[in-house]
Amino acid sequence: MADAPKPESLETFPNPNPSRDYEIAIEAPEFTCVCPKTGHPDFANMKLLYVPDRLCIELKAYKLYIHAWRNVGIFHEAVTNRIADDLIKAMKPRYLKLTAQFHAHGGITTTVTVEHRAA
Amino acid sequence: MADAPKPESLETFPNPNPSRDYEIAIEAPEFTCVCPKTGHPDFANMKLLYVPDRLCIELKAYKLYIHAWRNVGIFHEAVTNRIADDLIKAMKPRYLKLTAQFHAHGGITTTVTVEHRAA
Amino acid sequence: MADAPKPESLETFPNPNPSRDYEIAIEAPEFTCVCPKTGHPDFANMKLLYVPDRLCIELKAYKLYIHAWRNVGIFHEAVTNRIADDLIKAMKPRYLKLTAQFHAHGGITTTVTVEHRAA
Amino acid sequence: MADAPKPESLETFPNPNPSRDYEIAIEAPEFTCVCPKTGHPDFANMKLLYVPDRLCIELKAYKLYIHAWRNVGIFHEAVTNRIADDLIKAMKPRYLKLTAQFHAHGGITTTVTVEHRAA
Amino acid sequence: MADAPKPESLETFPNPNPSRDYEIAIEAPEFTCVCPKTGHPDFANMKLLYVPDRLCIELKAYKLYIHAWRNVGIFHEAVTNRIADDLIKAMKPRYLKLTAQFHAHGGITTTVTVEHRAA
Amino acid sequence: MADAPKPESLETFPNPNPSRDYEIAIEAPEFTCVCPKTGHPDFANMKLLYVPDRLCIELKAYKLYIHAWRNVGIFHEAVTNRIADDLIKAMKPRYLKLTAQFHAHGGITTTVTVEHRAA
Amino acid sequence: MADAPKPESLETFPNPNPSRDYEIAIEAPEFTCVCPKTGHPDFANMKLLYVPDRLCIELKAYKLYIHAWRNVGIFHEAVTNRIADDLIKAMKPRYLKLTAQFHAHGGITTTVTVEHRAA
Amino acid sequence: MADAPKPESLETFPNPNPSRDYEIAIEAPEFTCVCPKTGHPDFANMKLLYVPDRLCIELKAYKLYIHAWRNVGIFHEAVTNRIADDLIKAMKPRYLKLTAQFHAHGGITTTVTVEHRAA
Amino acid sequence: MADAPKPESLETFPNPNPSRDYEIAIEAPEFTCVCPKTGHPDFANMKLLYVPDRLCIELKAYKLYIHAWRNVGIFHEAVTNRIADDLIKAMKPRYLKLTAQFHAHGGITTTVTVEHRAA
Amino acid sequence: MADAPKPESLETFPNPNPSRDYEIAIEAPEFTCVCPKTGHPDFANMKLLYVPDRLCIELKAYKLYIHAWRNVGIFHEAVTNRIADDLIKAMKPRYLKLTAQFHAHGGITTTVTVEHRAA
Repeated sequence: MADAPKPESLETFPNPNPSRDYEIAIEAPEFTCVCPKTGHPDFANMKLLYVPDRLCIELKAYKLYIHAWRNVGIFHEAVTNRIADDLIKAMKPRYLKLTAQFHAHGGITTTVTVEHRAA
Repeated sequence: MADAPKPESLETFPNPNPSRDYEIAIEAPEFTCVCPKTGHPDFANMKLLYVPDRLCIELKAYKLYIHAWRNVGIFHEAVTNRIADDLIKAMKPRYLKLTAQFHAHGGITTTVTVEHRAA
Repeated sequence: MADAPKPESLETFPNPNPSRDYEIAIEAPEFTCVCPKTGHPDFANMKLLYVPDRLCIELKAYKLYIHAWRNVGIFHEAVTNRIADDLIKAMKPRYLKLTAQFHAHGGITTTVTVEHRAA
Repeated sequence: MADAPKPESLETFPNPNPSRDYEIAIEAPEFTCVCPKTGHPDFANMKLLYVPDRLCIELKAYKLYIHAWRNVGIFHEAVTNRIADDLIKAMKPRYLKLTAQFHAHGGITTTVTVEHRAA
Repeated sequence: MADAPKPESLETFPNPNPSRDYEIAIEAPEFTCVCPKTGHPDFANMKLLYVPDRLCIELKAYKLYIHAWRNVGIFHEAVTNRIADDLIKAMKPRYLKLTAQFHAHGGITTTVTVEHRAA
Repeated sequence: MADAPKPESLETFPNPNPSRDYEIAIEAPEFTCVCPKTGHPDFANMKLLYVPDRLCIELKAYKLYIHAWRNVGIFHEAVTNRIADDLIKAMKPRYLKLTAQFHAHGGITTTVTVEHRAA
Repeated sequence: MADAPKPESLETFPNPNPSRDYEIAIEAPEFTCVCPKTGHPDFANMKLLYVPDRLCIELKAYKLYIHAWRNVGIFHEAVTNRIADDLIKAMKPRYLKLTAQFHAHGGITTTVTVEHRAA
Repeated sequence: MADAPKPESLETFPNPNPSRDYEIAIEAPEFTCVCPKTGHPDFANMKLLYVPDRLCIELKAYKLYIHAWRNVGIFHEAVTNRIADDLIKAMKPRYLKLTAQFHAHGGITTTVTVEHRAA
Repeated sequence: MADAPKPESLETFPNPNPSRDYEIAIEAPEFTCVCPKTGHPDFANMKLLYVPDRLCIELKAYKLYIHAWRNVGIFHEAVTNRIADDLIKAMKPRYLKLTAQFHAHGGITTTVTVEHRAA
Repeated sequence: MADAPKPESLETFPNPNPSRDYEIAIEAPEFTCVCPKTGHPDFANMKLLYVPDRLCIELKAYKLYIHAWRNVGIFHEAVTNRIADDLIKAMKPRYLKLTAQFHAHGGITTTVTVEHRAA
């Protein structure tokens, strides 16, 4: 198994319209990591929604960051909170919501949703 | 017919992020029990949504708990309230909603929805 | 044409959880009655949603009550209000919503929605 | 319960293009009759497809013929064969297919399909 | 081109339940008029939702009123406001919403929504 | 009511690839004419599929030809055969299929399909 | 675990139209049995299509036969072949196709299809 | 690459009902521009919703304005803010929301949503 | 307007399994060119299906070839035949089918389908 | 990058009904491998359909075999032919079809289909 990607790999660029609150939604339906208990792969549609403050996330870097979880062993609840924390750290958004819709396994589907609002 | 599963079988694990309110949704579309009047099987999509406090429900134990209702004779309204009560007892969530979407019978479809908010 | 069914035919049973507000939704997509003007059949999906107080509606009796409208001549607005009134009388719910989605006729589709909240 | 409609009620009109084989499909999703055993209503989508010879079925008369089964007690297999026979008798088509898609009851859905080709 | 239909053609009947606020939704997916600039036909799904006060709209008269726009030359924004005004005048509803979903033309789809609340 | 459009209005252009059999499908979902009995409008999705020989149908002229049926009184079976005949006359295709899917009226949906193969 | 249901429980009734080949399709989306290896429940949509010869399957008996597999331990391939054999034995149809669409498990979905034609 | 279209090309016409707040929604699913980094084309469904004040946007001019971005090199966030600014400048609406749903690239889908409310 | 792309830009690579007939389907939903009459953009979903002989089409080169039509003025029937010809020339497939599904314009949708089989 | 899985890992079990031709369809929507050129992940829905001869594929072993491609670098056409070859070698089926539906990348979707029939 591999190490989790570093939050520093989440490159940003300056928000072109910081004077206005607006939403950016990014859907990455090909997230995959590994169950740390069984070693079986887990798959999720990772849906990010945020209101940028001074920084926006760079799309290509975000894609590579998502790919970098491929061989990391981590549970559903933990990985969703961790990615949210990395994104908050990288761009300090005014608002962020991250929803991880995991595929069904054993007939059971799990979705984890984390929300964050700047103080 | 069998006895209802025990709430103690609902194993939990510590919430990895208790400092944040976040949602976990678990959908179990293969719930089945038995009508206590006619002995015919009933089928439901059992949809759970909760905000964990100090504990999260362990997915595999939850799956086995759902399976354990297979030969129990119980009505729609009663089983939905009962499962909600078992989950509240097992993990004392900040918020919980349980929706049981029963399949149509006799051309009639029933859905029961129970909500709970910690005091 | 036949007479409207009697509200007394709507049997009830005691709510198993009166201490909690919860919703019961019952969908009857095979409602049919007769247009009193033309004698042509009307079809509707009759959707009931209620929060029980001390009584719940018995499903089999509700099904037969719905069937009993089959040869009754009555208009869309009137029958929706009438069924809502019968249900309110039979079980005095904390809340009730009845939505009658009539099939298209002459290229026009009508839906009537009645809401009731206990005083 | 009522008597079955008479095949003579199926009015026809002369085929405007008998020199060409072409198809006419008529879908009547609001067919309803009654189960002769239980007295409960049955519902079906009645789908007719035919290649006219010298006669076409008149649409309004066909609609009234379909309505006329409303209070007749008859089984799925029997009513589908009977309606096909009535249509064959009324217009002697070059080809006819009648598909009755009955709604689910007791979790079971039945579809009966009858085909006929002129000798 | 034809003249716009008269609001007086919108017949009404007394609301059977004026003591209760309830909704009536009527969908007419076959609305068509003519572009006053190009003479090309325009098509729309005309969706009406209202809470009746003392009067309800008569369905057959409403259908004929909708048909009567068939050869009238008028723009999207104008016709939606005009039909809403005619309906308000004819039945003085407690609430009314009219949504005209025009079909795509030139790869562009337009929807106009008008709302009205009795003073 | 208006007269039927003339087949001469169906302009054509030379097939750019007569050496190869290939299909052109054109869907016109906004066909409308008038019922000659009741005067009520009829609507259809008119689907054309053909293999051109030496001529192709010009799209803009076809659109205007379709519009020109707007106020013509004609039955379902007749108009479908008539449009097919006009198209066959105008471009003498190797193969042609015309399917007219009329919208439901009185709960009944009709589809007429005409096929033609060059001798 | 329980024993497999007996083929004798599949009651039949005389085909009302043996002079004609016609199809009867019966869909039972609530089939469930048990994996003999893991003890976990399996779920399937069991789709039957047959052309009756002298006998038709009685619907209520078929439903109870399907229910009777609920606690039987048996693999996907075996149970589909076995039910097909029981139906062939019970009614000797001219043609039969049985398709068992099992729900996904471990991210993998299996469908088994058996066909039979009378000699 | 081309220059961005000028806001002056966004022609307007007087709002026919300025006394009433109502919504106009315009969907342009064929927006395309060019990535300034890679030169590859980007595609989006551009959805506009506004409440007009004294002016409405002229549909044909809006379509040409949308077309005019075809060979302009610009990023997702920038173009959405820019088009919103041009529309606000052209018609000073009471309210405006612009949602640009870009097609997936590299397995990642981006949607940018800008809202504006008149002071 | 630009020149049509050259067939030589369609790079190929050796078929890894020439001993077996197998199908490769490639869907490019973002094809766009320009109407040579009006200058307005046209959009199509370009669907290719082929059985390779000795060569397969290189995906990246195919994508750039599709992009290269962006500013070329050409009619629907011509461009579909032309792309098919370019592909046949580039890889001499055993079989090829190209289907161009153009978006609706003026309420009319056109699809052109070209098939080729090696002699 | 990892080595391709060995065909020997595809365990089999004896066909329970070799006297009858029947189909087994297995859908694995979570196949993933790596592009050997760019190192980016590829995702596919891998659909297998076969008629067993003397052996059936063991489901759990097949799942692990599919997982084992996760870090292998291989092209679309090659991996589909290779998996088909491994399956043919492992169970010598009477018939086999393997369809690999790869997710869209760069706006382009590829599907590869391989068929095999025993001599």
